[in-house]
Amino acid sequence: MNDIRELARSKMSICKACKECNGIVCAGWTPGCGGKGNGSTFIRNVAKLKEVCVNMNVISSNEKLTCETDFFGSKVSLPVYVAPIGNIFVHYGANMSEYDYTKALVDGVGKDTIVFTGDGQNIDVLMEPLKAVDDGWVVPTIKPWQNDEMKKRIDMIKSSKCSVCCSDIDAAGLTALKTGYPAVEFKDEKALKEIVEKANMPVIFKGIMTKDAAIKCMNAGASGIVISNHGGRVLQDACSTIEVLEEIATAVNGKMKIFIDGGFRSGSDVFKALALGADGVLIGRPFSIAAIGDGANGVRKYLDKIHEELKETMMMCGCRKISDINRDCVRVSWR
Amino acid sequence: MNDIRELARSKMSICKACKECNGIVCAGWTPGCGGKGNGSTFIRNVAKLKEVCVNMNVISSNEKLTCETDFFGSKVSLPVYVAPIGNIFVHYGANMSEYDYTKALVDGVGKDTIVFTGDGQNIDVLMEPLKAVDDGWVVPTIKPWQNDEMKKRIDMIKSSKCSVCCSDIDAAGLTALKTGYPAVEFKDEKALKEIVEKANMPVIFKGIMTKDAAIKCMNAGASGIVISNHGGRVLQDACSTIEVLEEIATAVNGKMKIFIDGGFRSGSDVFKALALGADGVLIGRPFSIAAIGDGANGVRKYLDKIHEELKETMMMCGCRKISDINRDCVRVSWR
Amino acid sequence: MNDIRELARSKMSICKACKECNGIVCAGWTPGCGGKGNGSTFIRNVAKLKEVCVNMNVISSNEKLTCETDFFGSKVSLPVYVAPIGNIFVHYGANMSEYDYTKALVDGVGKDTIVFTGDGQNIDVLMEPLKAVDDGWVVPTIKPWQNDEMKKRIDMIKSSKCSVCCSDIDAAGLTALKTGYPAVEFKDEKALKEIVEKANMPVIFKGIMTKDAAIKCMNAGASGIVISNHGGRVLQDACSTIEVLEEIATAVNGKMKIFIDGGFRSGSDVFKALALGADGVLIGRPFSIAAIGDGANGVRKYLDKIHEELKETMMMCGCRKISDINRDCVRVSWR
Amino acid sequence: MNDIRELARSKMSICKACKECNGIVCAGWTPGCGGKGNGSTFIRNVAKLKEVCVNMNVISSNEKLTCETDFFGSKVSLPVYVAPIGNIFVHYGANMSEYDYTKALVDGVGKDTIVFTGDGQNIDVLMEPLKAVDDGWVVPTIKPWQNDEMKKRIDMIKSSKCSVCCSDIDAAGLTALKTGYPAVEFKDEKALKEIVEKANMPVIFKGIMTKDAAIKCMNAGASGIVISNHGGRVLQDACSTIEVLEEIATAVNGKMKIFIDGGFRSGSDVFKALALGADGVLIGRPFSIAAIGDGANGVRKYLDKIHEELKETMMMCGCRKISDINRDCVRVSWR
Repeated sequence: MNDIRELARSKMSICKACKECNGIVCAGWTPGCGGKGNGSTFIRNVAKLKEVCVNMNVISSNEKLTCETDFFGSKVSLPVYVAPIGNIFVHYGANMSEYDYTKALVDGVGKDTIVFTGDGQNIDVLMEPLKAVDDGWVVPTIKPWQNDEMKKRIDMIKSSKCSVCCSDIDAAGLTALKTGYPAVEFKDEKALKEIVEKANMPVIFKGIMTKDAAIKCMNAGASGIVISNHGGRVLQDACSTIEVLEEIATAVNGKMKIFIDGGFRSGSDVFKALALGADGVLIGRPFSIAAIGDGANGVRKYLDKIHEELKETMMMCGCRKISDINRDCVRVSWR
Repeated sequence: MNDIRELARSKMSICKACKECNGIVCAGWTPGCGGKGNGSTFIRNVAKLKEVCVNMNVISSNEKLTCETDFFGSKVSLPVYVAPIGNIFVHYGANMSEYDYTKALVDGVGKDTIVFTGDGQNIDVLMEPLKAVDDGWVVPTIKPWQNDEMKKRIDMIKSSKCSVCCSDIDAAGLTALKTGYPAVEFKDEKALKEIVEKANMPVIFKGIMTKDAAIKCMNAGASGIVISNHGGRVLQDACSTIEVLEEIATAVNGKMKIFIDGGFRSGSDVFKALALGADGVLIGRPFSIAAIGDGANGVRKYLDKIHEELKETMMMCGCRKISDINRDCVRVSWR
Repeated sequence: MNDIRELARSKMSICKACKECNGIVCAGWTPGCGGKGNGSTFIRNVAKLKEVCVNMNVISSNEKLTCETDFFGSKVSLPVYVAPIGNIFVHYGANMSEYDYTKALVDGVGKDTIVFTGDGQNIDVLMEPLKAVDDGWVVPTIKPWQNDEMKKRIDMIKSSKCSVCCSDIDAAGLTALKTGYPAVEFKDEKALKEIVEKANMPVIFKGIMTKDAAIKCMNAGASGIVISNHGGRVLQDACSTIEVLEEIATAVNGKMKIFIDGGFRSGSDVFKALALGADGVLIGRPFSIAAIGDGANGVRKYLDKIHEELKETMMMCGCRKISDINRDCVRVSWR
Repeated sequence: MNDIRELARSKMSICKACKECNGIVCAGWTPGCGGKGNGSTFIRNVAKLKEVCVNMNVISSNEKLTCETDFFGSKVSLPVYVAPIGNIFVHYGANMSEYDYTKALVDGVGKDTIVFTGDGQNIDVLMEPLKAVDDGWVVPTIKPWQNDEMKKRIDMIKSSKCSVCCSDIDAAGLTALKTGYPAVEFKDEKALKEIVEKANMPVIFKGIMTKDAAIKCMNAGASGIVISNHGGRVLQDACSTIEVLEEIATAVNGKMKIFIDGGFRSGSDVFKALALGADGVLIGRPFSIAAIGDGANGVRKYLDKIHEELKETMMMCGCRKISDINRDCVRVSWR
């Protein structure tokens, strides 16, 4: 991965592709790849993950280990997904089109996992990536636009082959999208329900950080949520995602899929989230750096690394399949 | 704000206008802007605020957001007030008169919020600022002088248009004011009661750090308190203000207004105090630096920054008005 | 010990023989002496030991102090054992044969304690060390090979004079040993039972980190376990050994011997483990550095140092023999 | 104090008279002024004191503040005593006789407080200091010698005018005193009782760190104890003194005087100990540095500084006399 990071550094002007991607160097670099304001939310995402450790347990069978998971009817090789990042030029200073960026991601991960794609005021940010995928093996993520625009874009997705969609409703807080046209807005439970009904396919709401919000998503008919603080890019001084996961999972109690993002870097990090109740993990920055640095090849290498690390962690904790991972597999320092 | 800090550095000889104003560089600089002794109290004020994080919650209406608050019958745009700082030359090494300093503050904040003004042995420190304001839109803060002087100064305030006054009773601990004339003294509950009766207007006592002291203020008829350790300038090794807020708020139970100061720098810091039970926050050093650096213009910029940050935090935590902010909005690491 | 570390540095190319051996410099150096991946497990092993402190208690008799302990019928001078490390060239970059390495260890410790020896795909790694010892005063530690190989090697041990053997079953996770011949495999409770029955001597299973695994070992007939995460060399982000010790000891309740390794460096560290329920401590890296640096002489010096420190700690905590050490002798910060 | 530290640096070869005396620079410098081994005990003494903060409370009377305390029938101006340090050449590398060192201390503190003096194999270390004081206003501290020597030295003290004596029974762990003549030994409850009876004056046992040991001292008839780990100089990895104080004070329940030492540097540190149950605090290194640097003049300055800080802390926490200080005056982070 050192090579890929070095390549990436030569191809982008904002992100420094640090050896440890922890939000410290880039604190406050928004627009850009850093956390908002003092950068504390991004930094806390990474720091709190270190306060979870895994319980090694080697007494087990030699049954073949698999990370296979169901993602709304599709089989993926591991429950790690590519987080939606659009406007790669604005965020990384990389001279790469949305199409090429998505192409690198989807070619890189193949059918092993699924790429979430982004959105922007310019509708090309939403649609160009979809052109890079011809079989619907992607999750378009729409910004929480005002009603008419929202419906228009949902219709466009429905006319693609995609069978699951997402909306990062915390993007309502993105200053840059509050003015101009279309503009984002906040969604209440009723508005979320309308989106779900309009979409007529499984809908995932991204940007959930409390159990109350999770329950509202359930009530609105969501099929899943992403516990996310937008990588620390919409609010300073927010809680980390990993520390709110368990109480949200307890409240949801299996009635909705729970995804999470925010500072996950290794397979052992992914394992921690699964143990605390997540069904899958979205990873953003490292995939972006891999795609910018070495295209599909870099993405593949990073995915293989995460996959290998997840397998090793499972194997060493007595888990042979994803459903074997449970709360007893980790120990948390913050309680 | 970088520009304003740079300007300020060129106009004062003590404070270094650090990028992060956290009491580390100036530890022990008293007289001056630093914390007393080893500086631990100032440092702890800032550090403990970082152990509170906010619960992001974006499922909400798009109702217009307002930070409007009532301050003893006056409407302010946000519950953030300018803390009383007198003797700007002694504390910052800035060549600025009390009059000009106050003028910059009151012109800067306009009617958006209220400036607390200071006091000193030289009565000009109390009265010059009042000359800068002709409509009573200011809270004069009297030192806890011995009885006769206290009454004399209260009479002078009563003859101004001010309708609320304050006394920073923890100034009884300021070595420089214990000798000479007039001298400060400690006030017991009976003495506080006399002050309240003499003033015949809402009185706020500043420098409260325990629930016992808060209850004594209530018994004495105070209309409000400021939880404060004088910015760490009267005692080393004291508790931070944010960590005592919740238990004082619980004891007071709405029967008195609770303000707080000590290391608040951003709108998210203000939000944390409101969530833990405060009715408002006083901010000192950053306003002083802004006033010294760029006068009313600097003050306005800093107030707008805090206001914007507070609105963003509220918006991202599902709050549309100040009264929406409650204990569920934050998570505290120290319990 | 400074001299020995300096000598060692001149004789090996990987380990830096740091003054404080804490896993920070060598993080990720595998193969080599460092912790796997981000090195967090090795680092946590050392860090968590610092969160235990001892309760000094000097009111006691002057009875002669002894650290003598029974090790499965053999009397050792102190409950500190040399951890099994094979392939000294691969791990330390030291040009030393397995035979010479073991010879330095066993000559160094004499009959004061017992050396655990290592194993490898090349059977010489197992057998050469045994040639260095002619009286069985050693604990051979077999990798968890697939069944036939396991039985073959157990037979070889049975034909030596050794009366206790060990298997580091967490080596099933060592990537380098998963391919080639023989290959390692995971062992379930049934497989462990077969090993115990085949061995027909006391068997110790090494690499236990949960009470569930400990109970399985008991059920399989093990005579002892080593609480170990392989020095942080098989998994990143795992718990430290010292923090799981107490709950495992409570579960085992004296029915099996409990050993532990992972970051123990001084006699006071050993004391902490004994107080939290261990019967003995295995130490690896420091003995390797001593053996590489100054042979039997270095090993003796390090053993004497640990012995002296353990005696001092016991003496200052009111303990005159190993069985005097109990839970009241330490205070733990992490609860 | 900066001047005094600078002078001291020029007159001693071991201690560096650091601005913050916290055991970090001198870790392991024994003999010398540092903590034993890795220095962790000395460092923890200082660090844990920082986890206690004081509850400021300014609503109070203006009654005259006094720190006066009774010390076994003698009135001292403040409950801060000079800790016994002998062999000033060995520990600080200062070319100063025991006589001159004690003379500087007793002349410096005058009748404001009391100096504990030291002891050594060479009986001059015990007796020379006593020559520096002609009125018994001193507490000789005898090492825990074997019986005959102990009794001989107690007789010598009884023939002086001293009316209280002390024995630092944790010196039984000092390696340098275990061989040669006389040698130290551990004392059990019976031996402590013999000492108390032989002395026939109030006896204080120093080096107590658990409630069990404290109770044994009570049973033996001691009049007081010093909670002490010998400044971290007899054992590494021991608990700090401040963290064991409260539980010992609860167990003793006023039936014996409780003193404490270990890292106390300021008047606010002293206040913390008094709030957690101590009757007085012994301070060592800072007094030594003051005496070496500027003789009686330096000692007086340091005592005045501590006295002033203690008065300020009491005043700002609503305490007017030592007995006003109670558990509500502080907040502890480690529980």
